[in-house]
Amino acid sequence: MSRHAQRQGEPLMVSFVYRRQLTVEWGHCDPAGIVFNSRFFEFFDRSTWLMFEAALGMSSAEFKKVFGVVGIPLVEAKASFLRPAKFNDGAEIASDVSEFRRSSFDVRHQMFIDGQLAAEGSETRVWAGRDPTDALKLKSKPIPTAVIERFRA
Amino acid sequence: MSRHAQRQGEPLMVSFVYRRQLTVEWGHCDPAGIVFNSRFFEFFDRSTWLMFEAALGMSSAEFKKVFGVVGIPLVEAKASFLRPAKFNDGAEIASDVSEFRRSSFDVRHQMFIDGQLAAEGSETRVWAGRDPTDALKLKSKPIPTAVIERFRA
Amino acid sequence: MSRHAQRQGEPLMVSFVYRRQLTVEWGHCDPAGIVFNSRFFEFFDRSTWLMFEAALGMSSAEFKKVFGVVGIPLVEAKASFLRPAKFNDGAEIASDVSEFRRSSFDVRHQMFIDGQLAAEGSETRVWAGRDPTDALKLKSKPIPTAVIERFRA
Amino acid sequence: MSRHAQRQGEPLMVSFVYRRQLTVEWGHCDPAGIVFNSRFFEFFDRSTWLMFEAALGMSSAEFKKVFGVVGIPLVEAKASFLRPAKFNDGAEIASDVSEFRRSSFDVRHQMFIDGQLAAEGSETRVWAGRDPTDALKLKSKPIPTAVIERFRA
Repeated sequence: MSRHAQRQGEPLMVSFVYRRQLTVEWGHCDPAGIVFNSRFFEFFDRSTWLMFEAALGMSSAEFKKVFGVVGIPLVEAKASFLRPAKFNDGAEIASDVSEFRRSSFDVRHQMFIDGQLAAEGSETRVWAGRDPTDALKLKSKPIPTAVIERFRA
Repeated sequence: MSRHAQRQGEPLMVSFVYRRQLTVEWGHCDPAGIVFNSRFFEFFDRSTWLMFEAALGMSSAEFKKVFGVVGIPLVEAKASFLRPAKFNDGAEIASDVSEFRRSSFDVRHQMFIDGQLAAEGSETRVWAGRDPTDALKLKSKPIPTAVIERFRA
Repeated sequence: MSRHAQRQGEPLMVSFVYRRQLTVEWGHCDPAGIVFNSRFFEFFDRSTWLMFEAALGMSSAEFKKVFGVVGIPLVEAKASFLRPAKFNDGAEIASDVSEFRRSSFDVRHQMFIDGQLAAEGSETRVWAGRDPTDALKLKSKPIPTAVIERFRA
Repeated sequence: MSRHAQRQGEPLMVSFVYRRQLTVEWGHCDPAGIVFNSRFFEFFDRSTWLMFEAALGMSSAEFKKVFGVVGIPLVEAKASFLRPAKFNDGAEIASDVSEFRRSSFDVRHQMFIDGQLAAEGSETRVWAGRDPTDALKLKSKPIPTAVIERFRA
């Protein structure tokens, strides 16, 4: 985890970057000996959860309670595969929120192997609570400033 | 699906066998080019659900309502891998209940490729409802005779 | 499978659409009771392979031999999740090649539940053979006209 | 990792136990909110590879070269599910070789959550090289004493 400087237009901003290491497992790989595409989306989903826990300093169960959300459902996911990730490769995944909007946000993931970018991902997610008129449905909610602040500073 | 004769001690019984075809997918296989072990357990889990739907003639959502169960949680799973199952292999999985006990039962799965046994599995599952003293917990329930009858005859 | 009319600029073209049915399995779903995002990418990957086998009228093993390719590696994958896909939902996935370029192509996937679009996906893949200067590496190759023709007419 | 005393008949033996921590991910869990059964087999498979790397002090790529094996293919896998493992639960998996035979061996896995046994697994694997009479086939080989020694002492 670290906070690094990042220019998003003006002014200069500092944003929270969550980093974790993982090793490519036998079960992640396909007959070509490289990570099967769906596994990258598992890796990125996991990194998003871990990034929120790290940025907010609480477990995902806690932040659901504290902020009255049901979750952060994914509405779009994308990945580009640039270099093969092979069995036993050590990788680092760096993740940050590239944009917060009123009730949705984008996450960016970069997976490095030997310092080289092997895969890039992006996710769009919604800050979602229960629909007050229908408890079985979800409804997007404004993302609290307190949450966004934890990813800045 | 078929019903075949099977001697389980005495008397001669006829038991329901659920059969389905599947083709081994690229994403099922590991770098050795064969189905990764955890996938067999997915296949067998799926066959058990489909077998119950076929034997009872109702969807799993319906049979939960009709019989007041929450599910049929797995307490033990086992598989033996006899021959490699490779990408694009066409397989047949035959499944039956090898034993019904008071509130649990055993399922047997056999996966054939080109008529030869490639993998064998077994599962032990519980017929489970809500615990009347604690709604968050499950409690095993006696398996109704009507259910068992659907697997006999 | 069907061939449907589709205007891509001029002239009017007819393109091959591969359709398949699948039922959402218990093991596909997450604690929210809906299909976990990585599973959609498994579904779409599988549909692409099946579409090629259907369009070319041969198994993937055969088309690799016939056309001298090692595979059709994925370089980009994307999905949008529009409506929840739940356990036991019956779905139809319709897939077609939205564009053939010299040595790469795009696949589009649409997953319908009860006639409504639940998820949309797209993939960019490369037509890849062995690198003649390094047998361990892949190299993109021109897609044969005979292949493209099978997706038209 | 640790070496602990374990009585296997006589004499008292000390065997290598490989321990690792993992946190249950959202994508590991099913609609009941607990780890889907096939995921335990992924966890155990991974622990076996890591245990060999730790015991032998080399990567799996290295030990294949050093010992002339193609791999340690699984011929049987089994798991018992004793307590639910839920999203975000922190778990410890302890693995050891419960028996070495001439060319096969058994691995035992125990997964603890909050110090309580949540799942138990066992695997039977073969020490396998290429068949000298058919390079496409595997053939079991005697397990070198040097390997077995690394799990004792």
